[in-house]
Amino acid sequence: MKELPENTLNRLIIYLKVLENLEKKRVDSVSSEDLARLSGVNSAQLRKDLSFVGTLGTKGVGYSVKALKYNLKKFLGRTEEWNVIIGGLTPLSRYLIEHAQLQKEGFFIMAAFDTKPENIGVVIGGVSVYNLDQLSYVCKAIKVDIGIIATDEDQETYFSAFVQHGIKAILNLSNYPLFPEDEKIKVENLSIVHGLTKLSYYLKNLGS
Amino acid sequence: MKELPENTLNRLIIYLKVLENLEKKRVDSVSSEDLARLSGVNSAQLRKDLSFVGTLGTKGVGYSVKALKYNLKKFLGRTEEWNVIIGGLTPLSRYLIEHAQLQKEGFFIMAAFDTKPENIGVVIGGVSVYNLDQLSYVCKAIKVDIGIIATDEDQETYFSAFVQHGIKAILNLSNYPLFPEDEKIKVENLSIVHGLTKLSYYLKNLGS
Repeated sequence: MKELPENTLNRLIIYLKVLENLEKKRVDSVSSEDLARLSGVNSAQLRKDLSFVGTLGTKGVGYSVKALKYNLKKFLGRTEEWNVIIGGLTPLSRYLIEHAQLQKEGFFIMAAFDTKPENIGVVIGGVSVYNLDQLSYVCKAIKVDIGIIATDEDQETYFSAFVQHGIKAILNLSNYPLFPEDEKIKVENLSIVHGLTKLSYYLKNLGS
Repeated sequence: MKELPENTLNRLIIYLKVLENLEKKRVDSVSSEDLARLSGVNSAQLRKDLSFVGTLGTKGVGYSVKALKYNLKKFLGRTEEWNVIIGGLTPLSRYLIEHAQLQKEGFFIMAAFDTKPENIGVVIGGVSVYNLDQLSYVCKAIKVDIGIIATDEDQETYFSAFVQHGIKAILNLSNYPLFPEDEKIKVENLSIVHGLTKLSYYLKNLGS
């Protein structure tokens, strides 16, 4: 696996989203200067990042929004569909299942898991809630690509279970960051409180 | 304002959350090795990061969980309370308001804004939805510290309005990243789809 720096990966995902937004506005082509500005970088950085994807703009014309979007999607594994399970029946997991935003993006929620008896067997938006004990059964029945942790109460329980059952990619939406001992497991820690704390730090130091 | 590298800031927030989790488990003290391991770094990195906060552990005893947590909270502006408004009445903003998780962390949602007539005047969990036109009125009535953008439809409308009304810290939860022209405005882009795309890139390249 060619090593792509994490900051480059983050910027490539930003370019993809900026291009999707341009496409929504029916913009056909974009100069590297405009794409860079909309993405919060300079155009030298943009061109360097896009060299990883092997895409070149046409001089004087810029990039085709559709073509560059497709190349980025392919590079980022987003032309494929991925099967997702969720750990914890919580307001957050209900929101993710009911809102169906992830499905539109190609991430299909196949099942949810909980440990409280009263939650087992509940069906939300077509997604069944299983006992965490049944994880090995579900993992045999379907290919599970990504496990999402959506609880602040027993995030470590779901984390251990996901790792034990060979799930290689975990999105941790709890407030408590988790780090795998096995470096072959990829964990993304993503917390709204983390984002707000970056802002509180900024505000506290404003003007000082 | 002393410049703190963004990666250091991210790690300091991680240490805070790991310590809060230890406190929940009634752990009183922690060695730098254990705290580092739980935070996904080595202990040299941990000690270097904590030097920004001015905290030293006691040799052979390690860190007091309560004391280090407090020092980090203070350093990060989290001993203060912050007033938050939300742009867009969406399933995500309903989740944030109803779940009240942010309030427990000291981020108080004071008002929500929308532009669709049918949403104006709605009250959710004690929070009123105002017309975006009334933002200047609300900004005069209360001190607004942070604006959260919680819609994928007209994220740019809320962004412009927040910036125009002097809001200096913005958490953008839409799928589309936003970058301020004015470098005195701090924007945190935080998207679940972004996190999942980092995982899809990882999975696509697994074994290759």
